[in-house]
Amino acid sequence: MYVIVVYDVPADRTHVYRKLLRRRLEHLQYSVFYGELTEGQVTAMKNDIDEKLESDDSIVVFESSNPTAFELSTFGDADEPGSRFT
Amino acid sequence: MYVIVVYDVPADRTHVYRKLLRRRLEHLQYSVFYGELTEGQVTAMKNDIDEKLESDDSIVVFESSNPTAFELSTFGDADEPGSRFT
Repeated sequence: MYVIVVYDVPADRTHVYRKLLRRRLEHLQYSVFYGELTEGQVTAMKNDIDEKLESDDSIVVFESSNPTAFELSTFGDADEPGSRFT
Repeated sequence: MYVIVVYDVPADRTHVYRKLLRRRLEHLQYSVFYGELTEGQVTAMKNDIDEKLESDDSIVVFESSNPTAFELSTFGDADEPGSRFT
């Protein structure tokens, strides 16, 4: 699965998700991570998110099995997508 | 096209993108918008983003022509996706 995760969390909790997501995904920009994972890895990641979730946190997970089915464009100072999306 | 837009911008510029994106998309959570647009609307939206872009701004546009090709999950206090994604 091609996965994109975006988080909106209080500033003092960004490190929690950065650490969690860096384990399996690449950093696209400040609060956006992406990568190619197995379905098992996606499930494990979602369980990890559920465990860390506090009331003010907000996370969106976007997944697709077909990398040609979507297109990603970045504007501004986002890091360029890595080879997994080219 | 099914479109998701995420922005990471300085706090004093969030209103710029919120206003711009609300014109064409629905609000999913704080910095995430989504909706179904024609290709012409996607192009117009990207041009609008280019016009507003300042050096500290960072925007990611995710698009797919096939709504069954991807899945969106939200965790925490994100608004539920509207009818366009069901």
